[in-house]
Amino acid sequence: MSARAGKQSILLDPVPFVASAAAVAGPLEGQGPLKGDFDLVYGDLRAGQKSFEAAERKMLQEACSLALEKGSFSLEQIDYFISGDLLNQITVSGYSAAALGRPYFGLYGACSTLALALSWGGILVAGGFAGSALAATASHHCSAERQFRYPTEYGFQRPEQAQWTVTGAAAAVISAAGGSPGITAITTGKVVDLGEKDSFSLGAAMAPAAASTLLMHFADLERNPDYYDLIVTGDLGRVGSQLLLALLSRSGYYPEQRYSDCGLMIYNPHFHEIGAGGSGCACSGVVVLGHLLRRMRQGELHKVLVVSTGALHSTTTLAQGESIPAVAHAVALEM
Amino acid sequence: MSARAGKQSILLDPVPFVASAAAVAGPLEGQGPLKGDFDLVYGDLRAGQKSFEAAERKMLQEACSLALEKGSFSLEQIDYFISGDLLNQITVSGYSAAALGRPYFGLYGACSTLALALSWGGILVAGGFAGSALAATASHHCSAERQFRYPTEYGFQRPEQAQWTVTGAAAAVISAAGGSPGITAITTGKVVDLGEKDSFSLGAAMAPAAASTLLMHFADLERNPDYYDLIVTGDLGRVGSQLLLALLSRSGYYPEQRYSDCGLMIYNPHFHEIGAGGSGCACSGVVVLGHLLRRMRQGELHKVLVVSTGALHSTTTLAQGESIPAVAHAVALEM
Repeated sequence: MSARAGKQSILLDPVPFVASAAAVAGPLEGQGPLKGDFDLVYGDLRAGQKSFEAAERKMLQEACSLALEKGSFSLEQIDYFISGDLLNQITVSGYSAAALGRPYFGLYGACSTLALALSWGGILVAGGFAGSALAATASHHCSAERQFRYPTEYGFQRPEQAQWTVTGAAAAVISAAGGSPGITAITTGKVVDLGEKDSFSLGAAMAPAAASTLLMHFADLERNPDYYDLIVTGDLGRVGSQLLLALLSRSGYYPEQRYSDCGLMIYNPHFHEIGAGGSGCACSGVVVLGHLLRRMRQGELHKVLVVSTGALHSTTTLAQGESIPAVAHAVALEM
Repeated sequence: MSARAGKQSILLDPVPFVASAAAVAGPLEGQGPLKGDFDLVYGDLRAGQKSFEAAERKMLQEACSLALEKGSFSLEQIDYFISGDLLNQITVSGYSAAALGRPYFGLYGACSTLALALSWGGILVAGGFAGSALAATASHHCSAERQFRYPTEYGFQRPEQAQWTVTGAAAAVISAAGGSPGITAITTGKVVDLGEKDSFSLGAAMAPAAASTLLMHFADLERNPDYYDLIVTGDLGRVGSQLLLALLSRSGYYPEQRYSDCGLMIYNPHFHEIGAGGSGCACSGVVVLGHLLRRMRQGELHKVLVVSTGALHSTTTLAQGESIPAVAHAVALEM
């Protein structure tokens, strides 16, 4: 039976498995170093749809279909659809839930959604509440830019610390019946707000949340970073990753050798418009469920700790002078 | 141990309890027939804050504090904070999570949030993943109006079928340790979209989702409506409630005598500006955790089925010509 470990963690037992997964990506992501790990790359940012928002929905639904297909799951075998995204009222997830027709848990964790959805799915399966659950997330550069910042047509010049929202979607079937890797442990984050107000500096806003969750994970499970072959944050980017390492070193941890950030892995470093790296729900989504899952299944990585990071502000709260609260959720994947 | 029942339901075992709860309400709600059932009524829509959004946050945090206080719970006893609201990026919940400092599950189900949060808290406690969880939600008439429709200062004349977003917040401590009532069963809804596009007619958009979840609940648990003393929907209002009863009667159910809607209970019927009834996350929030919980604990009601209903559109999707998907989640409360 699953057991609470320490203050914020759970050891899942029986271990739920990532039985199947799929990752689809947009044009720019499809030119990056991980292009071979995506199940589908769209050549067109609109994916043949009439709007960026509709394109994002199509990508999410495609990722779900592919995840089911790759694992030979029928929709009827899926007890719950668990999904969240960045758009107001998480409409990408809600409309996709209508299309899928499965009982739906909608969640919001901004760019931490992948780990949140995997946690939730893991809990449902480990607790016997579901045989299989479909956990998914998506983001789109253009829908996110126009909602959170400026319409892309405006051509706003972005500061160096800004990150680039990943266009794509990822979905995983979490199942009691087998597969690999297992979701062995989860650490659910507290929301941390150290007063950052620059919405172009989300890596800096999220780094303290990532540090909080990581330190709690190590303490709760009495583990050191070297328990894992790789510890990967969601989308701290260049600025946030450096801050995270500085924060961890204050507590005596120096995981540089086994640490990376999905936002630093997904794009070709020669694309200068990317700024400080990738971001968005799909950033850890497609890197973990596309790239890292392949490496785990090929035996290159055995134990991976995924720490997806999210900034929980809105344009309204920023306009009202509030700072940016952030959260990070961790899931341990083990072969 | 908990068991899946039928297609969309779970019988929770061991039964988690609503150990403590609180409901706070705005000025108009405090003049309605349920005013004596709220723990706190604000005389001022701004609750002394600089914005409606900040007022909504204050109300949510006050409801949480009161729920903890009434049950003599310390914050440290709360393993998870589970919350959602209507505002973009559920910032009321996210900023409150930062203030509370507990591990946070953010969820989005629009006005279905109460039942969603109680479901999720029930699962965590029944499955042994948490000893106690704090489930909460909030809404505010003015923050919702300006986000979804028009700023209230504009004085837009609302059509008759429009509903009035409830100002208030509600929170419940769900605990394994005891209390009453128990959360005995949950039915998680599918998203239903029959093509309604009028954002002033959300009751009509949500009624088919409520019917879907209710019919599935009856089938899954092999129960008739008369199993319950009261079946209460969240915020269908006058129009949606009539539609729901018509839809249920097609399947041979006539629960009129034991059915009501929180949106029809909360306001003084002489307030003509209310339109077709109350709505918003706080509608089922304060009616269930304020009014109905009192009636259950006083022995007037023993078995209540709460079916919170939510419309999952955004202003962007409506502007793009999309219809309004809706969802309803059910939780059975039993003394």
